[in-house]
Amino acid sequence: MEKNGLLIVISGFSGAGKGTLVKALLRKYDNYALSISMTTRAPREGERDGVEYFFTTKERFEETIQRGGLIEYAPYCGNYYGTPRDYVEEQMALGKNVILEIEIQGALKIKKKFPESLLIFVTPPSAGELKRRLEGRGTESAEMIAKRLARAAEESEGIEAYDYIVVNDDLDTCVEELHRLADAALRAPVRSQKLIGEIREELQGFQKGAD
Amino acid sequence: MEKNGLLIVISGFSGAGKGTLVKALLRKYDNYALSISMTTRAPREGERDGVEYFFTTKERFEETIQRGGLIEYAPYCGNYYGTPRDYVEEQMALGKNVILEIEIQGALKIKKKFPESLLIFVTPPSAGELKRRLEGRGTESAEMIAKRLARAAEESEGIEAYDYIVVNDDLDTCVEELHRLADAALRAPVRSQKLIGEIREELQGFQKGAD
Repeated sequence: MEKNGLLIVISGFSGAGKGTLVKALLRKYDNYALSISMTTRAPREGERDGVEYFFTTKERFEETIQRGGLIEYAPYCGNYYGTPRDYVEEQMALGKNVILEIEIQGALKIKKKFPESLLIFVTPPSAGELKRRLEGRGTESAEMIAKRLARAAEESEGIEAYDYIVVNDDLDTCVEELHRLADAALRAPVRSQKLIGEIREELQGFQKGAD
Repeated sequence: MEKNGLLIVISGFSGAGKGTLVKALLRKYDNYALSISMTTRAPREGERDGVEYFFTTKERFEETIQRGGLIEYAPYCGNYYGTPRDYVEEQMALGKNVILEIEIQGALKIKKKFPESLLIFVTPPSAGELKRRLEGRGTESAEMIAKRLARAAEESEGIEAYDYIVVNDDLDTCVEELHRLADAALRAPVRSQKLIGEIREELQGFQKGAD
């Protein structure tokens, strides 16, 4: 019930459709903001610096780590990915729910650092469907697809660390579900500390009055 | 996403309006069933055996404990309260979300025994409002009100054990919120074990195929 925005981490298997889902959520509701990650991986066709990612070199990425400019970072498939601090803090202070689309290692670091963050794992309805989507992209080698599926098997071991798991089958349904989960999450005690504290204090006041 | 109904525990300060809230939820949606507790406390005016509670003696209550007929029980303000097992299991198997309206000690026992149960704590907007509601009932002595407020102060220490805390200010809003929380809860990994297990197994199958 606190007024500050939520920090929402969205992870999921590569090919689960996280990007499309998050874009649709941002288009539909104006109380979300998307954190743009910094990465050392090469841009895919059509990706623009400062839109999909901030693309940078290994050296500059490591400099940013050194000066505390990232709230988390992690290696993934041979490249660095990280979350710049300033934008996240600024948007949350404005009351926006800030979405980080990051992988599981980063997600776990975020949860440890910010216990009130909300971790959502997005999955296709089945692993078979995941494989079909990866193959259907037509942009990646068989080797890369195998690598992503191996990574997915690893990641699936970490799902229990997430607050919610959502199945991305129908896009519109899934957007609504995400929005409702963000609302539900505000009712978890970890995100209602102010209310709980006030009630406790007032109840203790009655006790003192009665003594 | 599993098909079985949820076990929903609703607790909250005495005077938070849990009873009214649960009744309104049951009237509005047909996928809920209310578990009726067994108690050794005397009926209040208008309370009927088998409707608000199964009223019984201390001796018969203890017999029921002995034969494993309760899924939990606890003393509260000098009386026993407990949850008969058969009804709960039968309704959940039918796909109903079974609501237990029990106090915090019982709630914690339920969560330990059934980790996938959903614990919801209902509170008025403030402790001051709680006090006003208890006084407004006009059915209880000043001593009993003081006892309930002291108990509320104790109970407030346990709120973090609940999955969600809901503020019962406007009844209709609160009913909708409960209904949405039950839906959101199905997306928590602890209640999606079947889906997670299937995805893991299938992903591991791909690995074996690739070796």
